[in-house]
Amino acid sequence: VDHDALEACPKLTGAFGLLGKRWNALILDLLAVRPLRFSQLDQAIPGISDRMLGERLRELVAAGLLEHDRPPQGPAIYRLTDAGRSLQPALEAIRGWWAKLEHDSDRARAALPASRPAR
Amino acid sequence: VDHDALEACPKLTGAFGLLGKRWNALILDLLAVRPLRFSQLDQAIPGISDRMLGERLRELVAAGLLEHDRPPQGPAIYRLTDAGRSLQPALEAIRGWWAKLEHDSDRARAALPASRPAR
Repeated sequence: VDHDALEACPKLTGAFGLLGKRWNALILDLLAVRPLRFSQLDQAIPGISDRMLGERLRELVAAGLLEHDRPPQGPAIYRLTDAGRSLQPALEAIRGWWAKLEHDSDRARAALPASRPAR
Repeated sequence: VDHDALEACPKLTGAFGLLGKRWNALILDLLAVRPLRFSQLDQAIPGISDRMLGERLRELVAAGLLEHDRPPQGPAIYRLTDAGRSLQPALEAIRGWWAKLEHDSDRARAALPASRPAR
C-alpha cells in the first residue's frame, strides 16, 4: 500500500553527488576515448582551470573511477578503471536523451508560424 | 587521423548543465513513480528548502521535462512530460552503476584482513 512514504533514492543521491560536480562527467567521457594527459584534458574542456581540473582528477581517482600512470619520463597519464568505464553506457543514454530533446525542441520551434520566413 | 582534437561533448555538457544541478535528478526520479504535489516532493528530498525546490521545479518546467496541473481546488500537481519520462532509462543505468560500485567497494573492504572480526 502506498502511504506517501516516498523517499529520494540514496543511490541516485550518491551518484549525482559525484557526477553532478561540474566537469566530472565530461572528464569520464573524454577518457573513454583513450587515456589522456592532464594537458590534453585541460585543452579539451573549455573553461576549466588547472586547479579545478586537478581537484576533479584527484576526486575521481579517490572514487576509484580513474587511475594514473606516471612514466619515468614525461607527464602522468590518466585512464579509466573498470568502474569508470562501466559508467559509459549511462553517459551514452544521457547523450542520446539530450540529443533527442534538442532535436524535438528545434522541430517544435520550426513548427511555430512566427518562425517561418516571410514570403 | 587523430590530431589530439579532442573536445568535450556539447551534448553531455548541456545535459549535465541541467542534471548536474543539485536535486534535479532526484526530482525527475521521484516523479517517475507518480505525479506529486510540491509538499510531497519537499518531504521526499532530505535537506531541500522550499525556495530551492520551487526554483528547481520552475527550471524543469521551463526545460520541458515537467508540467503542472493546478486543479480548481487544492495544490498544483507536478508530473513528467514525455521528455522527462524518457530520461528514466538513463537514471536506471546510473542507479545500477552506483549500486555495483558500492557493492564492489564493500566487498573490497570485507576482503581486507584488518576488517575481519577477531576470533
